[in-house]
Amino acid sequence: MNLILASASPRRSELLVSAGIPFTIRISRVEERHLPGEDAWQYVKRLAEAKARTIESAPGEVVLGADTVVVVDDYILEKPADDADAARMLRLLSGRRHQVITGICLRGASRIVVDSETTEVRFVPLSEAEISDYVKTGEPMDKAGGYAIQGLASKFVDRVEGCYFNVVGLPVALVYQKLKEFERMHG
Amino acid sequence: MNLILASASPRRSELLVSAGIPFTIRISRVEERHLPGEDAWQYVKRLAEAKARTIESAPGEVVLGADTVVVVDDYILEKPADDADAARMLRLLSGRRHQVITGICLRGASRIVVDSETTEVRFVPLSEAEISDYVKTGEPMDKAGGYAIQGLASKFVDRVEGCYFNVVGLPVALVYQKLKEFERMHG
Repeated sequence: MNLILASASPRRSELLVSAGIPFTIRISRVEERHLPGEDAWQYVKRLAEAKARTIESAPGEVVLGADTVVVVDDYILEKPADDADAARMLRLLSGRRHQVITGICLRGASRIVVDSETTEVRFVPLSEAEISDYVKTGEPMDKAGGYAIQGLASKFVDRVEGCYFNVVGLPVALVYQKLKEFERMHG
Repeated sequence: MNLILASASPRRSELLVSAGIPFTIRISRVEERHLPGEDAWQYVKRLAEAKARTIESAPGEVVLGADTVVVVDDYILEKPADDADAARMLRLLSGRRHQVITGICLRGASRIVVDSETTEVRFVPLSEAEISDYVKTGEPMDKAGGYAIQGLASKFVDRVEGCYFNVVGLPVALVYQKLKEFERMHG
């Protein structure tokens, strides 16, 4: 059984490599637009499924689509538009908890599984100087919620509840369990 | 203020590099032997302090010592002695929660701070085949508790409660907060 990763995210690739799960990348193009009335969980699961469905696959292949957002209060934070947007997100996250939600979809020849994982993340209080210094590094720019927990923002996160790797971009243990089910059922 | 890391652990170095905290390595030699009646928290704090104290330092330097253990039931797990010992540890951890405890000590010219951080980690159930395959990779051998959460064992950990980086070997947010206190107080 061959795993096809339908994501251009270097973090997702690195997580699968670290976990020793072999895969091939085939990138999909899906418009990421939030629909009225859709909550964050419905949103990431819909996008994950859309990503997995837009990839052509052969028998014996399982396609993995994923999408990650950050939720704080009732706001969904995706990738920041610019430095000011990143600073705004970091001010929202400072000194409190938020949720990181990843939707995943695994699509084989005869079955499709859609699920999501939620992790609580707590930030220490950030000063304006820390926010400004962090934004200047450029690290927030292509990250949901404007930070990389595995990078320079590691020093700002003192507590996680749930799957850590979900915060990086992929709930590795969940994907691994689902892949084992696919293998038992021959896709 | 210059940070001196009194540890040969490549993981601790990588964590400080990722967090953007500058440092120099000066390795200490401390005998790691558990004393009768000492609990895991006392043990890692004593070792962290011993490591920080054995390093010579100049004014303006802050020395960081650290020690990490895994605790499951009343057992303290350190680095496995051999493959069979690693397999024994992984059987103990399979399908349940354990604690990872890191003691840290920061020693400046006029003050010393000793603290510890505890993180709960949950493993999915592991089959004998998974344990045997994992041990064969060699990854468990130089790791407290016989696993690397940031490596191939990432797929076995579905939940963390507390500081994730503590499980890798250093509670980065705690160290960062304490360093800021040292800077405010000029060491």
